[in-house]
Amino acid sequence: MTASLVAGLEPPYYTAVFTSVRPDDPEGYAATNARMREIVAELPGFLGYESARTPGGIGITVAYFRDIESLDAWRDNDEHRAAKRRGREHWYESYSVHIGKVERSYGFVRN
Amino acid sequence: MTASLVAGLEPPYYTAVFTSVRPDDPEGYAATNARMREIVAELPGFLGYESARTPGGIGITVAYFRDIESLDAWRDNDEHRAAKRRGREHWYESYSVHIGKVERSYGFVRN
Repeated sequence: MTASLVAGLEPPYYTAVFTSVRPDDPEGYAATNARMREIVAELPGFLGYESARTPGGIGITVAYFRDIESLDAWRDNDEHRAAKRRGREHWYESYSVHIGKVERSYGFVRN
Repeated sequence: MTASLVAGLEPPYYTAVFTSVRPDDPEGYAATNARMREIVAELPGFLGYESARTPGGIGITVAYFRDIESLDAWRDNDEHRAAKRRGREHWYESYSVHIGKVERSYGFVRN
């Protein structure tokens, strides 16, 4: 679980918003998810991610990338492609991906 | 709680990603949040939102807008500005906002 936010991002950068509906703890999901986090963290241009999931509701993960090339490298990664295939076959009822170029961002941290 | 995903979005559109850390159920939050959902739903150009929150972890809300003008109208709404001020004073430990223009999106729905 991520309990703090990705900070210090300077536009422009890219967000990959992944929203999904799936059962709470499907077989095989946790190990694959952990492996995906390892792989993406090693990619040049990866800036971090945040993930939240309402029990019984939807999940949202946001991954941050410096440029579209690093995001495409993640999309095309072989292990990632295989994981997405397993996800469609076994885990997800539905998901959406929204790739956006961020031109504006701001934040707040309590003193 | 949103249990299904916003569907049928055709690029280009905008995502406002709001990520936050706050206590689980702070006083006054739920009513303000419900009111904000009413207001934003009436704005021209608002396309929908999704929200997820890991208990004890972070929350992520993604709001979808047709164009930057509708997103700016939401940012500048008086009630919304007052709610953000209360959020900084009382509710949030930290938050970030990332405004992105979506050029690519895709999804999956199980048959």
